[in-house]
Amino acid sequence: MADQYAHTSVGAEPPMLPSLRWDEPPEGPVLVLLDQTRLPAEEAELVCTDVPALVVAIRTLAVRGAPLLGIAGAYGVALAAARGYDVEDAAEQLAEARPTAVNLGYGVRRARDAYRAAAGQGADPKDAAAAALTEAKRLHREDARASAEMAAFGLAFLDELVSGGGHRILTHCNTGALVSGGEGTAFAVVRAAHRAGRLRRLWVDETRPLLQGARLTAYEAARSGMAYTLLTDNAAGSLFAAGEVDAVLIGADRIAADGSVANKVGSYPLAVLAKYHHVPFVVVAPTTTIDLDTPDGASIEVEQRPGQEVTELTAPQVAVAAPGGGMPVAPLGTQAYNPAFDVTPPELVTAIVTERGVVSPVTGGGVAELCAGARRAGRG
Amino acid sequence: MADQYAHTSVGAEPPMLPSLRWDEPPEGPVLVLLDQTRLPAEEAELVCTDVPALVVAIRTLAVRGAPLLGIAGAYGVALAAARGYDVEDAAEQLAEARPTAVNLGYGVRRARDAYRAAAGQGADPKDAAAAALTEAKRLHREDARASAEMAAFGLAFLDELVSGGGHRILTHCNTGALVSGGEGTAFAVVRAAHRAGRLRRLWVDETRPLLQGARLTAYEAARSGMAYTLLTDNAAGSLFAAGEVDAVLIGADRIAADGSVANKVGSYPLAVLAKYHHVPFVVVAPTTTIDLDTPDGASIEVEQRPGQEVTELTAPQVAVAAPGGGMPVAPLGTQAYNPAFDVTPPELVTAIVTERGVVSPVTGGGVAELCAGARRAGRG
Repeated sequence: MADQYAHTSVGAEPPMLPSLRWDEPPEGPVLVLLDQTRLPAEEAELVCTDVPALVVAIRTLAVRGAPLLGIAGAYGVALAAARGYDVEDAAEQLAEARPTAVNLGYGVRRARDAYRAAAGQGADPKDAAAAALTEAKRLHREDARASAEMAAFGLAFLDELVSGGGHRILTHCNTGALVSGGEGTAFAVVRAAHRAGRLRRLWVDETRPLLQGARLTAYEAARSGMAYTLLTDNAAGSLFAAGEVDAVLIGADRIAADGSVANKVGSYPLAVLAKYHHVPFVVVAPTTTIDLDTPDGASIEVEQRPGQEVTELTAPQVAVAAPGGGMPVAPLGTQAYNPAFDVTPPELVTAIVTERGVVSPVTGGGVAELCAGARRAGRG
Repeated sequence: MADQYAHTSVGAEPPMLPSLRWDEPPEGPVLVLLDQTRLPAEEAELVCTDVPALVVAIRTLAVRGAPLLGIAGAYGVALAAARGYDVEDAAEQLAEARPTAVNLGYGVRRARDAYRAAAGQGADPKDAAAAALTEAKRLHREDARASAEMAAFGLAFLDELVSGGGHRILTHCNTGALVSGGEGTAFAVVRAAHRAGRLRRLWVDETRPLLQGARLTAYEAARSGMAYTLLTDNAAGSLFAAGEVDAVLIGADRIAADGSVANKVGSYPLAVLAKYHHVPFVVVAPTTTIDLDTPDGASIEVEQRPGQEVTELTAPQVAVAAPGGGMPVAPLGTQAYNPAFDVTPPELVTAIVTERGVVSPVTGGGVAELCAGARRAGRG
């Protein structure tokens, strides 16, 4: 089944617009986002001049992905400070824009604390704003470095776990350069495998309802020249049953202290399928995704998103045609259950790969040890 | 979570166009189909005057669903005979239109054999054609009766299995009046539960890629006044984890002699989730869906459908805009894995409910006993 698609190439990639960049045109500082809602049809940038615009961009998923949300949050605070808006108010608005990804609040706090510290030491607002921006840029660089480290740890772990031949990896949602200051989380590991000539196939879950797999991961995979194949989320079962998946690699939006993983809805069913078929289920996320203040999976707040994401189809090119902006596919008045995330308990997670090392098996103790600063915890 | 949507009503339903009807206008006999590709936006009928048109309707899923395909196949043979076309050739074309649903071939053979028998006894072509039509109508009536019987057996089984309160049922794809000469298979059981006041909630999987759940099951549920909620297929995991599902009820396209069930892609992952959460997974299908000539799941041919169903979005109202007729959502050139069905092994199936009774546990012996004509086999 796979061989008919077996073409792969590693070479020069066309340059990709950065998913996020700080700019300082004469009119004043701005945060420029690659509008992910319009990919892959169009590579369009969205210029945010204030925090309310950024909050809308976060809520509508123009900018998304746990690590990138942290970076965006930090730059958002810096933007408010640089433009002379109320920094505390801006930080609050940003932190509440989406509830599940812990990185968002983390990035916001880093920039806000830098601003507070500078202001507390008597810096004038301009210098305090510069301190916030410096912190946002530092977080951005740290995230890029964390991507590279996760990729190295992840590939080594994968090579150890799955012997022989190339890896056939199934992934869900989008976890590449579009969610990160670097090459991403799970997708960074996939790219490392591809560069090392050890990626046999990337199976890309389309990831309903917003199709981040079809639109974004396929976009990044195509640009990287990988052998990849798209599938509906519900077709993954057939792949497992046919023995076509060597490992599942996904990202995370929040990892609780006990190792429970909140990630894009559809991750948990993959974990159950992986367990049933004895396939490793590996979570790749920076330590900023770990929230020791959240004790367990049940304590993770899962964002419920508008039902129209399910009852209407929205593609990048669709003209506004219905209340949610898409084309209705279900009868009018149909109500939808539309959680953005689900929670996978630690016993279904083979490993958590971070920039500090690998936790496997996944236990509260292992997670705590990693966070305490051990260079590599667990078996990794 | 469920209570916020808890409104339900049992009352007079607006009449629904039949999913299929034989008509004899002055211009000659025709088979009229409710075009299921245009639901729920539009209730439009498609008039087939010959078998090639019907084959296209079958392949494009304008008419679909295992039992209804059998009826359509039988009427197709009758149509060819009535219009003086080559009946053997028509039967062959029809039987090959889709490979997985066993009922299609069964219906075709019933009408063709009636035609052959009449012709063999010296009937003139007109009388032989009438014999084929009589047989198609008989199959149509039988299927309606089988629906009612499955509904009764299924509800009794459900009441026995799930005690207390109303049932919260998860279903996949569409198995109602749109697939049947009667009220359907799994959905007929749901309707029976609703009429008896014992349906608390119908969870409707949207069923990618063609959204039969969102478009068709939601349409039938809305017309029936049920409390139903639509979800993306990958959100079912969260419902199981939250204890919100009492039973999964699905149909079948082919059941092998060992009890393996081929059904719409996405059924197998639900079976694995149900097993993991100790939730009954119940298959409802007429005995015409059982194929004793197919020994096991591995022997079932699974139809692979065009990748455009995944790489492009197609809604009833979408103007043709891309090779597959939809709007591209994935990068151009993206290849897709798009099996129409998956296969669930008998150990994951709690019961098979047929018009003759219930097989539970599901074993080759139980299936054979049922087919041998026992009125009720197994525990049902």
